[in-house]
Amino acid sequence: MNQDKNIVIIGCGAAGGTAAQFARKTDRKSSITILEKGKYPQYSKCSLPYILSGTISKVNNLIEFSEEWFKKANIDLLLETTVEKIDVDNRIVFAKKGNIKIEKSYDSLVICTGARPFFPPIKNQEEDGKLVDGVYAVRTIDDIEKISSFLKKDRNATIVGAGLIGLEMADNLHKKGMNVTVVEMLTQILANTLDEDMSKIVHDEILKNVELLTNHLAIKIESKNGKISKVLIKNNETSKEQYIDTDLLIIATGCKPDVLLAKDIGCKIGKTGGIIVNERSETSVKNIYAVGDCTEYLDFITKKPVPIGLGSIAVRQGIAAGINAAGGDYILPKGVLQTRTSKFFDLEIAAVGPAIDLIKDIPFVSGKFNGSSLPEYFPGGKPVSIKIAVDQKSGLILSAQAVGANAAQRINTFACAILSGMDVNMFKKLETAYAPSIAPTLDAVTLVCDIVSMKLNRKR
Amino acid sequence: MNQDKNIVIIGCGAAGGTAAQFARKTDRKSSITILEKGKYPQYSKCSLPYILSGTISKVNNLIEFSEEWFKKANIDLLLETTVEKIDVDNRIVFAKKGNIKIEKSYDSLVICTGARPFFPPIKNQEEDGKLVDGVYAVRTIDDIEKISSFLKKDRNATIVGAGLIGLEMADNLHKKGMNVTVVEMLTQILANTLDEDMSKIVHDEILKNVELLTNHLAIKIESKNGKISKVLIKNNETSKEQYIDTDLLIIATGCKPDVLLAKDIGCKIGKTGGIIVNERSETSVKNIYAVGDCTEYLDFITKKPVPIGLGSIAVRQGIAAGINAAGGDYILPKGVLQTRTSKFFDLEIAAVGPAIDLIKDIPFVSGKFNGSSLPEYFPGGKPVSIKIAVDQKSGLILSAQAVGANAAQRINTFACAILSGMDVNMFKKLETAYAPSIAPTLDAVTLVCDIVSMKLNRKR
Repeated sequence: MNQDKNIVIIGCGAAGGTAAQFARKTDRKSSITILEKGKYPQYSKCSLPYILSGTISKVNNLIEFSEEWFKKANIDLLLETTVEKIDVDNRIVFAKKGNIKIEKSYDSLVICTGARPFFPPIKNQEEDGKLVDGVYAVRTIDDIEKISSFLKKDRNATIVGAGLIGLEMADNLHKKGMNVTVVEMLTQILANTLDEDMSKIVHDEILKNVELLTNHLAIKIESKNGKISKVLIKNNETSKEQYIDTDLLIIATGCKPDVLLAKDIGCKIGKTGGIIVNERSETSVKNIYAVGDCTEYLDFITKKPVPIGLGSIAVRQGIAAGINAAGGDYILPKGVLQTRTSKFFDLEIAAVGPAIDLIKDIPFVSGKFNGSSLPEYFPGGKPVSIKIAVDQKSGLILSAQAVGANAAQRINTFACAILSGMDVNMFKKLETAYAPSIAPTLDAVTLVCDIVSMKLNRKR
Repeated sequence: MNQDKNIVIIGCGAAGGTAAQFARKTDRKSSITILEKGKYPQYSKCSLPYILSGTISKVNNLIEFSEEWFKKANIDLLLETTVEKIDVDNRIVFAKKGNIKIEKSYDSLVICTGARPFFPPIKNQEEDGKLVDGVYAVRTIDDIEKISSFLKKDRNATIVGAGLIGLEMADNLHKKGMNVTVVEMLTQILANTLDEDMSKIVHDEILKNVELLTNHLAIKIESKNGKISKVLIKNNETSKEQYIDTDLLIIATGCKPDVLLAKDIGCKIGKTGGIIVNERSETSVKNIYAVGDCTEYLDFITKKPVPIGLGSIAVRQGIAAGINAAGGDYILPKGVLQTRTSKFFDLEIAAVGPAIDLIKDIPFVSGKFNGSSLPEYFPGGKPVSIKIAVDQKSGLILSAQAVGANAAQRINTFACAILSGMDVNMFKKLETAYAPSIAPTLDAVTLVCDIVSMKLNRKR
């Protein structure tokens, strides 16, 4: 008779929680333990900004799976439990909950240690090794509770970084009546998601609501009574410096994978700084899996490693790791599409595939279409812009970006085309759903393909 | 030197108008003539119901391409011009505009004669060979202008047929304050689009707004002073008959392809009654193309002929016929997906692929998922239900139906999967776009695939 498997999971974010759930689905008898350093069970990190505006009314609503849920699923969830060491030879995890020492044997170990916010080198952001009051990242419920205490109409908030999270924060703080300034180092916003011409549409919309300073660097903080009062920013082009009065400084400049434990036991760490995993979510160490923001995996198109920073991918890797750790067999596609989306100031954006400047090794042809969600003659149509890039040789669709009406669902169709290896000359013939009240006879998703297909044929 | 091509197009609906437009794009010099029997240039037939509610404020707004537009494109559009005969041997079309006889030579001829409404055998619907006042189909601007004169709050309208157009009419007449009753012969509504269980969701929503009698037949009309006053309907099950007072009777029981001219010159007519066309939109007669509602073509999945009744397909065939007629080369996919959608009473529906009872020759597995457009913890999510059928042997996706949030764009993703020949085990791993304000980490489109994939694996 086989003994029941011991599965240990470190971290109970979307990655760890999903791994546990699918391990349980795969094997009803195995013993499953999650060791989580924080005090909350699985909650939606991506929704933290929406607490600030009150869109989500309270922090407890963020919890996706409660302690009771894990209990019912016969999953042993230990909160406020920090893993201190992993003994790979004897397959034991050593952890601590308060003063209590915990030892857990494992047959399969799943590392879901996530990522830590990256703080750019802004002078004076720390005092005595601690962040100055009013300076926060947006990573945990703790962060958001601290930020909440600074919310007040007409107060000033400055956000460093105009990526997805920076702009979600800008929107939610603006909804709360704060004066928001976004400072972005690069010459464009949303550089990981949209090309410059596409990001310009969002830029113009955002400017109607908040201050937006691209090509600017935050370089120094001034405090008063231990609280931030000003931030000094510098124009990268002119080198001109100026102080901005601010009551709150939000750091939204990305994350760094948290790989200390994994590195310690010899898991290979990749070029992007994440734990290298394969299509089964296995690390380089036998019986050890890793999932989510602490990992890196291949991009589906470039086949180069990319850091995993999306909840959607964490969940899919979690499914794979959970099933495989429990003795099942689940294989992910050979690379991530990085389908991503968000909405700020009522403008939806989405993209799939590598940002177009990352595919410079592949000769490609790109094109853009600006249209409407409805036929011209039907009232209520909303603008939608789509840009795609295709392989110049094969015509295969490499990447797509959309801004406007139903951007995310439109991008999902391109995600399907990329995953199936469809070329632009086939996609342009796709029969999309048409009704005057829903979409035009020829949707923007195929019209952009017509444009690119014509360019492609001229180059051939 | 080549002489310039003469292209003649019969009919200026979406089919003919698109064919002309793409013929012109392909060959700038050719002579292009459209002969249209009605008095309007290309307009949106699908939008006719929206005139009634005032959603589209006037009939002129329906016109997609004006006479001026055709003139600028150097396309000769002759309105109120009826084709009387085609001489295939000498390639001449004989037509009449009022008393003026017109002869047009052609190198390529495109037949876009559309379809006529099908009137079920309801007694007394005609008097002296003419429809009784108050009895109308919904096919032309003329029809809609006549119906408009009957609109009045609290008047009674009865609609025969609960397909897409019948229900769009119900919604628009209801918006105008009329008491609407829909009578459907079959035991379910929307039988060409949704399975019975999916149609039930729509049924329940519609019932909140209008009367809906399925499994009922309209059998007789009573008139007063030449105007309809009552309609007799019969319960198919109990055979019980009852009179309904009505000021308006809308016949929405489908169409019959108008193939008289094509049949006359020997174009092969198929089993469904449409002109048989191939993937270049060619008929069986050399140099003669046909497009749109007068044709039949293969279903992509069953490879059996289906009547073409969708504007989206007419436009795509029009592109093919226009380009090919002008000497270009455009090939359509080997079958139509029949991606279709509509919205009534704020509920969006969509489908792709054959109705599931039409694929009974292929052993299939189907499954349904009821979910939400947003993660549970995020406010504002709307219900969405998706049902799919996959080939039991290959796992290929055969058909999909959706009711609810963004049904059409969700179905487009399945259309892409069907066109690319993707199986359900790959589709379920599709990385869909996730953000709390936009969609859950696992969208309904992949969750339904999980369900079907599990069923499939159990059967294998």
